[in-house]
Formats: sequence, structure tokens, C-alpha cells
Amino acid sequence: MRAATATGAGGPDVLSVTEVDEPRPQPGEVLVDVVATAVNRADTLQRQGFYPPPPGASDIMGLECSGRIAELGEGVEGWKVGDEVCALLAGGGYAERVAVPVGQVMPVPGGVSLVEAACLPEVAATVWSNVFMTAHLARGERFLVHGGAGGIGTMAIQLAAARGAEVFTTAGSPEKLELCRSLGATHAIDYHEDDFVEVLQEAGGADVVLDNMGAKYLGRNVTSLATGGRLVIIGMQGGSKGELDINALLRKRASVTATSLRARPLSEKAAICCGVVENVWPLVASGDVRPIVETTMPLEDVARAHRMMDDGGRAGKIVLTL
Amino acid sequence: MRAATATGAGGPDVLSVTEVDEPRPQPGEVLVDVVATAVNRADTLQRQGFYPPPPGASDIMGLECSGRIAELGEGVEGWKVGDEVCALLAGGGYAERVAVPVGQVMPVPGGVSLVEAACLPEVAATVWSNVFMTAHLARGERFLVHGGAGGIGTMAIQLAAARGAEVFTTAGSPEKLELCRSLGATHAIDYHEDDFVEVLQEAGGADVVLDNMGAKYLGRNVTSLATGGRLVIIGMQGGSKGELDINALLRKRASVTATSLRARPLSEKAAICCGVVENVWPLVASGDVRPIVETTMPLEDVARAHRMMDDGGRAGKIVLTL
Repeated sequence: MRAATATGAGGPDVLSVTEVDEPRPQPGEVLVDVVATAVNRADTLQRQGFYPPPPGASDIMGLECSGRIAELGEGVEGWKVGDEVCALLAGGGYAERVAVPVGQVMPVPGGVSLVEAACLPEVAATVWSNVFMTAHLARGERFLVHGGAGGIGTMAIQLAAARGAEVFTTAGSPEKLELCRSLGATHAIDYHEDDFVEVLQEAGGADVVLDNMGAKYLGRNVTSLATGGRLVIIGMQGGSKGELDINALLRKRASVTATSLRARPLSEKAAICCGVVENVWPLVASGDVRPIVETTMPLEDVARAHRMMDDGGRAGKIVLTL
Repeated sequence: MRAATATGAGGPDVLSVTEVDEPRPQPGEVLVDVVATAVNRADTLQRQGFYPPPPGASDIMGLECSGRIAELGEGVEGWKVGDEVCALLAGGGYAERVAVPVGQVMPVPGGVSLVEAACLPEVAATVWSNVFMTAHLARGERFLVHGGAGGIGTMAIQLAAARGAEVFTTAGSPEKLELCRSLGATHAIDYHEDDFVEVLQEAGGADVVLDNMGAKYLGRNVTSLATGGRLVIIGMQGGSKGELDINALLRKRASVTATSLRARPLSEKAAICCGVVENVWPLVASGDVRPIVETTMPLEDVARAHRMMDDGGRAGKIVLTL
């Protein structure tokens, strides 16, 4: 089958489409004929050699896909060959076929195309697990997400707004800020112009912060928290070691959690996917949460897709079709 | 009435017993005739000027007491004058009488004297709220508490062991280590001899750590955590600003929470006291959890009691009787 593979670690040009062996579905897995996959920040880190796949995962990139079930592994029930699905992957999405544990296979939500569905699993699972399962964002609470125009940001804004939170976000251009507002952010903060700490403090503090900057924002995120606030860190684009002001945290009775989705055990991923299907898919079907796709291109353009990701400046996700 | 008061901030000798006005129970409060109170680390910090009482709290020290209800404030139901009780206080326990929000008044658990009951509310509420309500320590999990021979430590060891956790603790003398073992710690670690990080890592990591050292142990506590581990910081005896290794936290999908009990709103304190009466008092009544009292002395010896607390080297709590 065709798959995007890398010749060593490095820039986007290490990527190209080659012929590789097809995966076989193990017991409890399904084999999916991939129709589309999407590019995530973690893919570009993996390409650069910073984020090796977890043990047992495919060394092909791609953390999500949509497609049709081609074959059922031993013991799989509830699905049949030909079903249209999307799936959360530990890797392997940049290929014509991928084997997926059945707990990570989800129906395509109503109201979106099979291609669009490829860019939902990773962001929906990340936002649902961190903002709702871990941080328990509740109706009426104040929520801050950094990088509101990105894949995670656009999902987080929409989902938090749809569930009745007051949404604050940061972005770096007028177009991105406007996108954030159109998705439901009531406070879209231009980080070149304004200090998000001041904005949040004036509003009474953030109950939940979803952060991808790590060390660079650690102190400012803690300062932005309200009493009882929960900071959840899911990326370290701003470094991994930061000073924690324990006294500030203690006075607020606040918490800092750092998580990743990819290395979680299958049982946790299955529970997250259940939560997504139950809580996020209905909001997609109703149009309250929509996939934000910047562009779609064939898998053969994988190097170009990664270059766009590296250059930043995007809004929404980059989808690759097979 | 008699109360221990301080002439300025400083060493134990600033404390003496003087005559002050009696408090009046406000609506929703009860007035308690204090039989006994106990010394907590926070009292010694307050004496030194480092830990001012929260707004509205008595400026008399004392975060817990036992005694008999002397008067019911407006709207109080479920108690009557003469009832023997113990109570969690925001302050005011070092006195003949104290006014307490009714949500913080608890019955005296079976099997302990009214004097012994004075040293249970603060440690029971601290351990219950942090280890169980916040960190959700579960049966079969590994639990590490630092300073196992202290007031918090002795309660944490007993409660965690009684609820089926595997208990690790640190202490600094053979006598203290023996006390910890007798209370249910299966791994009592002499911090002069052994590295708790190594012990925990060999065992598979701590699911929950209860820490009173703050910055000094932040890195080592994070290193000691298991996947999904929860570090709860309730004291900063080792400083307040420490380096947080976000990458280590993220790889473990772990959290750091810092909390204090005293400044919480009444509704939260009431919920905590409910949890204590429901979950901790039955274990006290059955003898699985017992108050560890180092010594009992009259309130007039308050300066000596604080000197003992400052000197360290103790095991269990210091009780003051009225």
C-alpha cells in the first residue's frame, strides 16, 4: 500500500510517499481503508525526531483518520465491513490502510463529510479528555485556551462555548482573532497587543486554562487562574522546565496537570472516545461544533502540508486525502 | 473569658493567657465551651506573622477544638446546648469559648475522650479533603506522605492504610519510623539514610503524594510519581518557588495541586466536615484510626507548647486544655 514515510529525521523534505506492507488487524482491531487523515503538531515533532511513537505503535505518522472498515479482527463486534468511521490512532494514519483498536473507532458524526471527519478525532479527544474529563469545565465558568485559531483551539472554543463556558483565547493576527470570535470566544486577545493575564484577572480569573506553551507561560497561566482553577498543559512549545510559584497555587487551591493522549492505555482511549461520541458528536451534528479545515490536499503533498504546519500562520487543520 | 493572645509577632514568649471579650454566635453559628484545643504548624506561623487569619476570622489562634455547645445562634438546627462536639475552626480555639459555623461542628467520634477529640478535626479534614476528595486515593494504590510522625502524617498513614492503600512515609529517627510502622506504614523511610525517590521508583511510583515541604521536594516528588500520579502540596516548609519539570509531568499524565484548608468558603468546609463524619469517624470508633497525642498541658502553658512545636522532634499532637 502507499504510505508517507520519512528518510531519517529532519525538515518536511524527508517525507515522501512510498510502498509499504499492509498492516493486519490484530484481535480487537479493525482494518480501515483510509479516505483522509490530518496533520497534527505531534506529527511534525515526530518527523524531527522529538516524539517517537509509543511502543507497539506504527512508525508511520498520522494520529487520526476517516475511512471505511475493510476487515474486522478477531472478536470485534458492533461494526461491519463498509461502515464509514473516523478513528483516533496511535500512528499509521498517513497510509492507505491502518489497523485500529476497536475502542478508538467512532461513527462519522452527522452533518460532516467523510473527508472532514478525518480532522475531528484528535482534537475532539484532546479537548474532551483534558477540558471536561480532567479539568471538569462547568457551565458558567471562565475558560482560557491559547492558540485559539489552531486545531485544538478551534475545537476548544466551540465546545466550551456550546457547553456554556465564557471563552477567552489568544491569537496573533486580526484574521485569527475574528475566526475565534466567530466560533464563540467572547474575549479574543491579541497577544502582540494585550496581556492575557490582565484580561483574565480583570474578569475574575480563569477556572480552566488549556495550554500548549509549557514553561514559557507557566507563571502567567498560574497568575491568570481563579480560586480553584485548573491549568492543563498539553504541549511544550515554550519549553519544558519552568518555575512554579507554589504559594500562588496554594492561595488559589489550584492545580497544574500535564497530559498527553497518545501514550494512554487502550482502556483510557476507549473511555475518551465513548465520551466524545456521547458528548461532542451531537454538537457536531447540530452544527454547534464544526470542523475547521484550512486546506485539503492529497497525501502525495505531505511535505508541503508539513511545511505549512511548520510555518504557522494557519487557522484550522490541514487534511490529507488518500 | 481567658484566651491565649500574642504581644506582636515573634518567638513562643510573645504568647500568654489574658482576659478578652467573649465571642457572640452569629446566625448559623454555635458557641462552644472549649474543653481542649490543639497546636498546629499554622499556629506557629501565625505567631511569627507569616500566616495572618483570613478576613473575618478571630485573631486568636487555634484551628480546632472540642467542648460542649453553650448557645445556638439564629437558625441553627440539629444541635442542642450541652452536646459534646469537636469543631474545625478558622481561628479562636485557644480560648474558653469560640463561635463556629454550624457546618464545621462535628460529633465526638466513638472511642475517644472529649480531650482527645480536640486534635482530630484539623488533621482529619486536611487528610480527607486532600488525599481522598482532591487526589482520590483508591484501594491498592501507593501513597507517600512526608513527615509521617507529625499530626498530619499520623492521620494520613492510618487513614490511607485503613482504606487499603500501600503506605510509604518519611521520618527522621528510629522512634518516629517505628511509630509510622505501628500505624500502618509498610515502608517507613529514614530520610537521613535512604532516598525516598529510589524507594518509590522501585515500587512502581506513588499514585498520591501528600507533601508539606513545597519547593525543596517538588522535583523529587514529581520523580516519585507513578503514571497518573497526583501530588498534593499543603505546606511550604522547604520554600515556595521550585522548578517544575513539565515534560516529566506530561509523560506521567500527572498533576500538582496546592491547597489550604483555612481560607476555604464555609460551604466547602461544611462538605469536608460531612465527609469526615461519614468516612473518618467510623474508623476512629472502630479503633483503626486513633488520635496520636504527644502531650497534653493547660492553656497557660501555651508558650511551652509552641516551643515544643518549634523544636520539632515530636510525634503526634500537642493538646491544650481549658
